[in-house]
Amino acid sequence: MTEYDYRTLDDVIHSRVRLAIMSYLMTAREADFSALKKELKLTDGNLSTHLRKLEDHAYVSVTKGFAGRKPQTTVAITETGDTAFKTYVEGVAAMLGPQAT
Amino acid sequence: MTEYDYRTLDDVIHSRVRLAIMSYLMTAREADFSALKKELKLTDGNLSTHLRKLEDHAYVSVTKGFAGRKPQTTVAITETGDTAFKTYVEGVAAMLGPQAT
Repeated sequence: MTEYDYRTLDDVIHSRVRLAIMSYLMTAREADFSALKKELKLTDGNLSTHLRKLEDHAYVSVTKGFAGRKPQTTVAITETGDTAFKTYVEGVAAMLGPQAT
Repeated sequence: MTEYDYRTLDDVIHSRVRLAIMSYLMTAREADFSALKKELKLTDGNLSTHLRKLEDHAYVSVTKGFAGRKPQTTVAITETGDTAFKTYVEGVAAMLGPQAT
């Protein structure tokens, strides 16, 4: 079935930056803030802003700790985020329809 | 290959409304303004705004004419739009990676 109502796509995930973050975490499951920043070619501010939005929706969890004496921030995808991402992918596939295959 | 740089996704197409318009036109090739509005569940203003942006990038062409005495606006995908959409779909597939299949 093809679905052309744009509201079927979760706006929290759809933003290009957050889509990149979520796609990365779907495979990696968790990542260090610096690694994520490097991999996605984002600035600190940009990554922080989008992580906050994802955290607000409980799609990721952000944990601050230490690696030795160095502060380290770890970002992990949550069960909620995993489910939301899968629903999003289904929505995109339904919208793109035959083009996607 | 998986690509996590969000800049690979064409922002002109990525907006949820424009993605819905372009997806629809990839199959329909052209559509009457009213039909498009109804199919995508959009208001006149919302559809117009996004069509203008797509038209500015030559992804769609908008033709005003008459069906009998009734004014009719026809929207068609262009060759440029077709190519841009296909590139976008490849970019999304590369970003979603194994999740998309």
